[in-house]
Amino acid sequence: MKPRIDTKWVVLLFALIAGLTSSALAAATAEAGGEGSGRKSKKKETGVVVKLDADGLEIKDGGGSFKFQLGGRLQADAAFHDQDTSSLGNGTKIRRARVYFKGTVHRRWGFKSQFELSGGDVEIKDLYLRYSTRGGTAVTVGNFKEPFALEEQTSSKNSTFLEAALPVTAFAPSRSLGVGLHRGGERGSASIGFFGEPISASKSTEDQGFGFASRLTWAVVRGERGILHLGVAGEYREFRRDAEFRFSSRPESSPTGERLVRTRNLEDVESTDRYGLELAASAGGFSVQGEYILTRVDRSNVAQAELSGWYAFFSWFPTGEGRPYSAKEGTFGRVKPRTKRGAWELAARFSSIDLDDLDIAGGQEENITVAVNWYPNANLRFMANYILVDSERRGRSDDPAIFLVRAQIVF
Amino acid sequence: MKPRIDTKWVVLLFALIAGLTSSALAAATAEAGGEGSGRKSKKKETGVVVKLDADGLEIKDGGGSFKFQLGGRLQADAAFHDQDTSSLGNGTKIRRARVYFKGTVHRRWGFKSQFELSGGDVEIKDLYLRYSTRGGTAVTVGNFKEPFALEEQTSSKNSTFLEAALPVTAFAPSRSLGVGLHRGGERGSASIGFFGEPISASKSTEDQGFGFASRLTWAVVRGERGILHLGVAGEYREFRRDAEFRFSSRPESSPTGERLVRTRNLEDVESTDRYGLELAASAGGFSVQGEYILTRVDRSNVAQAELSGWYAFFSWFPTGEGRPYSAKEGTFGRVKPRTKRGAWELAARFSSIDLDDLDIAGGQEENITVAVNWYPNANLRFMANYILVDSERRGRSDDPAIFLVRAQIVF
Amino acid sequence: MKPRIDTKWVVLLFALIAGLTSSALAAATAEAGGEGSGRKSKKKETGVVVKLDADGLEIKDGGGSFKFQLGGRLQADAAFHDQDTSSLGNGTKIRRARVYFKGTVHRRWGFKSQFELSGGDVEIKDLYLRYSTRGGTAVTVGNFKEPFALEEQTSSKNSTFLEAALPVTAFAPSRSLGVGLHRGGERGSASIGFFGEPISASKSTEDQGFGFASRLTWAVVRGERGILHLGVAGEYREFRRDAEFRFSSRPESSPTGERLVRTRNLEDVESTDRYGLELAASAGGFSVQGEYILTRVDRSNVAQAELSGWYAFFSWFPTGEGRPYSAKEGTFGRVKPRTKRGAWELAARFSSIDLDDLDIAGGQEENITVAVNWYPNANLRFMANYILVDSERRGRSDDPAIFLVRAQIVF
Repeated sequence: MKPRIDTKWVVLLFALIAGLTSSALAAATAEAGGEGSGRKSKKKETGVVVKLDADGLEIKDGGGSFKFQLGGRLQADAAFHDQDTSSLGNGTKIRRARVYFKGTVHRRWGFKSQFELSGGDVEIKDLYLRYSTRGGTAVTVGNFKEPFALEEQTSSKNSTFLEAALPVTAFAPSRSLGVGLHRGGERGSASIGFFGEPISASKSTEDQGFGFASRLTWAVVRGERGILHLGVAGEYREFRRDAEFRFSSRPESSPTGERLVRTRNLEDVESTDRYGLELAASAGGFSVQGEYILTRVDRSNVAQAELSGWYAFFSWFPTGEGRPYSAKEGTFGRVKPRTKRGAWELAARFSSIDLDDLDIAGGQEENITVAVNWYPNANLRFMANYILVDSERRGRSDDPAIFLVRAQIVF
Repeated sequence: MKPRIDTKWVVLLFALIAGLTSSALAAATAEAGGEGSGRKSKKKETGVVVKLDADGLEIKDGGGSFKFQLGGRLQADAAFHDQDTSSLGNGTKIRRARVYFKGTVHRRWGFKSQFELSGGDVEIKDLYLRYSTRGGTAVTVGNFKEPFALEEQTSSKNSTFLEAALPVTAFAPSRSLGVGLHRGGERGSASIGFFGEPISASKSTEDQGFGFASRLTWAVVRGERGILHLGVAGEYREFRRDAEFRFSSRPESSPTGERLVRTRNLEDVESTDRYGLELAASAGGFSVQGEYILTRVDRSNVAQAELSGWYAFFSWFPTGEGRPYSAKEGTFGRVKPRTKRGAWELAARFSSIDLDDLDIAGGQEENITVAVNWYPNANLRFMANYILVDSERRGRSDDPAIFLVRAQIVF
Repeated sequence: MKPRIDTKWVVLLFALIAGLTSSALAAATAEAGGEGSGRKSKKKETGVVVKLDADGLEIKDGGGSFKFQLGGRLQADAAFHDQDTSSLGNGTKIRRARVYFKGTVHRRWGFKSQFELSGGDVEIKDLYLRYSTRGGTAVTVGNFKEPFALEEQTSSKNSTFLEAALPVTAFAPSRSLGVGLHRGGERGSASIGFFGEPISASKSTEDQGFGFASRLTWAVVRGERGILHLGVAGEYREFRRDAEFRFSSRPESSPTGERLVRTRNLEDVESTDRYGLELAASAGGFSVQGEYILTRVDRSNVAQAELSGWYAFFSWFPTGEGRPYSAKEGTFGRVKPRTKRGAWELAARFSSIDLDDLDIAGGQEENITVAVNWYPNANLRFMANYILVDSERRGRSDDPAIFLVRAQIVF
């Protein structure tokens, strides 16, 4: 055990030194330009510009060296479950209620803090410091999403369905505390990061767990007519000695507390490695998207287990808008209606997950979802999903149907 | 049980469909006007107006389609208890520390989020999305106050006494997650809502409890000389199977943890219905206000219990300001001093609650309060209350006297 | 016990009455000027000024009667422990993530609320209402730092080392709920306060504990060439009957959960009194600072115990900036680099704590720290500390070495 710990901290140290050094160098080269004009602009107070529109509130100084943005989102859900074996619990739920502050100082240094309020208290989401080099590389330190899975990277305010697909919910690593590099452009994006544990993880005197994650995306085709997106991602993670966790997924309905597929708590996990493949294409108002995720679990004295899942969906806007794609981020963005009548979207998704391997009897589930979304304007969205669930866990079949509605405002 | 559940979800579905439909229709009719001018105004960035005064911070675009407001309140209390039987605990307390964000997008769509910070962490208060039709009806989705009781609807920053009267604290339902309709004008207001459970309620796989609430107010007299306000309200609520709760009230002092009247935890409650009557009048610097609240509790295999209470108070401003009334909301608003010397208010309240019925031996209490308030300006207020308590619970009498002071700032 | 409780509440009452009275009188005298011009400025909406620069976001009306400020800080740490006896736990940590809102209404009334987000949820830090008299005295009501210890009063965003010295962490009382008076000028500052318990203390029906604290600082020398600062402070505190607490300190590393020196939980403490001596001097880029803190613990039926500690450090800026001193507050402020290359700081600290006296066997510790700080601009700072620990507790020696790094942004 001892040598491995040494290795990992040496790696962490290198990553930090590399990050700080590149920041320092980048800052040094940036001084002549960015910093200088920042200084000048502080003089002209009259140059401050306040903007308030569909993209939220933005305040910036005349020179663009300092910027402050504030915004958020609210998602109110209701769920009606035509339950089968398990009780699912009809009801209402604030799914997300988020506020963010975001800013830039001295042109190249930025920060973001984002809070989730839906639980009745406050949970930290994004909380990071970012340095953007002149060349366009972003160095991020803090709590942010590990680069993995297209549907996870795409903001929940822009997701086509109410919930992410079964394998994304179960396998994508979400946010952790770490250091990351991101570079993106017209032809694609590359992200790499070294991460400790999530910000909310309980602290102890044990060495923390840690992980590496990386994601590469290509905009193979990109033009007026449409796009073709390919992506690959991987994450390797070692766990702290006293860690225990499980893989699970709700039936793509958040108001229920029930998870039809779930492993037991795995207490002897040493490491996991996860791999993701992404494919997406859009043309006009039509788009398709799919992902496959494989997770391998290494435990002490047990053979390696393999869990996996995939999903595919199509989306069609009869009103013609389509889902806007960002090659720089390798994600999809916010739909803005073309006309005053708003935008309409019809979509359908098939998702599948397999949590059964060796002694891990987490179950299997396949969901079919049909969706209707209405976007009255760039800030509002009303969504309805109807989900047919087909699950089996430890020999017990559970096949409910679920009707979900959501009202969403983004500001 | 089964058929009743079915009925309730049908009702919920209808309520949601009705809400969404009316939103949709309203949005459609509003498009020609509101949305259009909103689009135009986005072009003129220079038109953004920033306002900062006694009403807080407001930023809006030139066309009025987008608006952002930020504000809050802070109430710091100290309590001195001349205790009788029970230990009450002298001490200081941040009674309320709230921050809110509020905004409008595309003219007719709005949101509000408000956080309570006084507990040392964050509790969510208002958290909703609101659509205002051209005709003035507001459709609200999210976490907000159920329409019930004048003293509950009146913001705590404008309340005449430090705490709401005994029956309002014990019986008024406060905030829950739901859908509501509100319409108000010069002659009165009407509110109706369908609510699930509060946002902070623990989630389970049981069906949530739900309730209907409605409040009607009339500004019978409304003119330069004075106003006469009448109000009625009702709430019906069914509880989730595993729910348990109690009725209780502190002795109109928040720093103490003691509740002199309190029922035991009621575990077998199926439903409650509550009724409220409101009467208020003001003329010049003088005003009176009173409410009666009746709560009926239905439990399985037990006769219906009836709990009730009432209060009445008068308020007099020697400096002449009076309490400003909003017929549109059916509530009282913020006092703004006429002169630089500030405003002074003298008030007295009698309040009474009876939590004894059948096997529910929660006790009885009558409080007499005298109050002095000083408003140095529109944002500050200093309050002092002296309360004589006369309570009896399960044969034990407890008659403390309480002295409370508060410093309040609203921004 | 009874007579002492009476006395304390009489004192509290007097303090509050004195505070409110002085506020009232000050407000009355201030009316002719401040308030008047405040009123006028409300008319000129066009006069609102928005400022965004290295000092954060500030919005104020033309007359200066109303002001609103927003800002924060983010500190991301990583720790590498070359541990000796105890496991310390390497890892990363968001050390501080704070957002504040601050404002002024009617010229002389202000408020501040500041939230700590680093724990994954929200903790309240500053939360107060402040009245500033025409003469420059500030009356503060709410949750704020008790006036004690130079290193505690100096904001963590401006501290020379990652963590405060051992005795400051263990003995300085931090924030509590209370009333305070502060007056400062060119020659020094005076602060006095009456405090209940911290805002996050659990409430009960017991009388709360309370304390008095006072701090006096002199700027003996103050000029272009340098400063000489002297300070004394004292705090007396009585505890609620059911209180229990301990004195402890982490080894000047926050990511570890281990406290090498710590007393057991002391359950029988009636009161403590604490005394602090401060000395600091700076000239050009060079400065020194030191403090001594003595804490005496009175327990029922046990002799008085004395715990103490001290530290001393020097700091040198090869780039010449030096640490800016505020005589008005008696604290050090934010370093702003002179050139575009940024500022560099080298520092070393010796700190010592003794938690052994009578039956209290909390241990002893001495730390030597060397530090390098880089300030690329006025908003960013990167810090590295290397700490040699020499501790002994109950006969067990524990001498780890610690390497800490921090990235900090202030906005």
